[in-house]
Amino acid sequence: MTVIGLGLMGQALAGAFLRAGHPTTVWNRTAGKAGRLVAEGARSAPTVADAIEPGRLTVVCVTDYRAVREALGAADVQLDGTTLINLTSGDSGQARETARWAQARGARYLDGAIMAIPSTIGTSDAVILQSGTRSDFDAHEPALGALGTVTYLGADHGLASLYDAAGLVMMWSVLNAWLQGTALLRTAGVDAGTYAPFARHIAAGVADWLPGYAEQIDRASFPAEVSALETDARAMAHLIEESEAVGVNAELPRLIKAMADRAIAAGHGKEQYPVLIEEFGRPGAH
Amino acid sequence: MTVIGLGLMGQALAGAFLRAGHPTTVWNRTAGKAGRLVAEGARSAPTVADAIEPGRLTVVCVTDYRAVREALGAADVQLDGTTLINLTSGDSGQARETARWAQARGARYLDGAIMAIPSTIGTSDAVILQSGTRSDFDAHEPALGALGTVTYLGADHGLASLYDAAGLVMMWSVLNAWLQGTALLRTAGVDAGTYAPFARHIAAGVADWLPGYAEQIDRASFPAEVSALETDARAMAHLIEESEAVGVNAELPRLIKAMADRAIAAGHGKEQYPVLIEEFGRPGAH
Repeated sequence: MTVIGLGLMGQALAGAFLRAGHPTTVWNRTAGKAGRLVAEGARSAPTVADAIEPGRLTVVCVTDYRAVREALGAADVQLDGTTLINLTSGDSGQARETARWAQARGARYLDGAIMAIPSTIGTSDAVILQSGTRSDFDAHEPALGALGTVTYLGADHGLASLYDAAGLVMMWSVLNAWLQGTALLRTAGVDAGTYAPFARHIAAGVADWLPGYAEQIDRASFPAEVSALETDARAMAHLIEESEAVGVNAELPRLIKAMADRAIAAGHGKEQYPVLIEEFGRPGAH
Repeated sequence: MTVIGLGLMGQALAGAFLRAGHPTTVWNRTAGKAGRLVAEGARSAPTVADAIEPGRLTVVCVTDYRAVREALGAADVQLDGTTLINLTSGDSGQARETARWAQARGARYLDGAIMAIPSTIGTSDAVILQSGTRSDFDAHEPALGALGTVTYLGADHGLASLYDAAGLVMMWSVLNAWLQGTALLRTAGVDAGTYAPFARHIAAGVADWLPGYAEQIDRASFPAEVSALETDARAMAHLIEESEAVGVNAELPRLIKAMADRAIAAGHGKEQYPVLIEEFGRPGAH
């Protein structure tokens, strides 16, 4: 096992491999990051070329995709016959491009994303997304299991980045909606701890609707079984008015209504909320 | 039991009272809405004054608060000794003002909000929020139980509207985040049904963080135990880039980053996400 990149996340990954009993080689662009890992039994490689060898699994977790190419692209690095698992943050285009680059040099390549903070690596709370050739994933799934809960998404190397982005927008959206609600209720003296269980209940309840709503999108048919968009838009106007009246931020409510208004203007007022996929699926105002 | 207002929701409320065995009187501003309810045993009152009498519970569910005052403010309507439960949609200011107005006329007044669609009224899925004097709520809680799951929020008559608004912003935010993620993944050929369980899992998982995050807000102390805001902001930049690169809407990602950037500019970059309550708690850009 080799880990390239010893930032906080890279150190956590190498530490989890060591604790799982895997002989582990580490390398970092700048020196002085390997000390604790060496004390735990890691071998610190002097060069990338020394750290990477055919038949070994190499996990890469560096600043960005440019840094991946810099590290692995050095003239003396032999990628032929190696397997690379790139857990560096980036977008789906970079992932696909780097897959082609690595495969052209004879490497097997999986692209991944880590939906976790370093302190949870090595526990089931750490979700590690993987995309690339299924057989490459299957060969290394047992070793990756030392890092957390590993999920294979599909052959397209861009999938891990896309799922990661989708997960992040959900995370921040739930947090922002909770903050908006908390701000509204604080104007009436309700503390955040009193409101939080209510917010949690609503978020989890709405999450349960998603598989059913997804069927409307996949059928491209949006009958207003629950509520018509033009009815929703009236409640959205109330939400903006309430936010403005009590003096809290109204930008999130206004964005919610703006998206719905565009779908209504496009003729979807009598259809159901998931019809907004058409607005979310195309570039909007800047 | 009296129900004032026979829109879809008012009809559902009256129907639930009838099915629970309550003698129910109904009234609507325009005629012709009471037919089905009368067939089920309701009495159709010729005037509001006739529908409302001391000792009876009157549930009001009309278009807006102006319509509440028009209906109940007629010269011959006696509110003294009645209990009004107003389930009309509006904001917290209107609720408090209408409470004062009704109480000045001798009525007991509860303000409520219905977090449900008409077809679920009468089932536990229908959440009915109530705010006002506790003893007034306690006196009528058994009867209200015929409508759904009834929750008492506190003495401030504005609370039901505020919780309703908070719940709605959570609902639309989870849906929008799911649509954003669905749009991202559709660019890679992933259908909505494949992505929905992942979105549901993330939303429910983040919802579980809220009670803990609420403690930071109530202590007004935001140590970066999980992640610092300036680290989050880098991932937000990735999210915008990914959305733009694959050609989907980027307005929601940009709003997410704009809120975080303002908190960072205000000196909170090394603190944790709930510090954004300061941004959500004040009017922002228009």
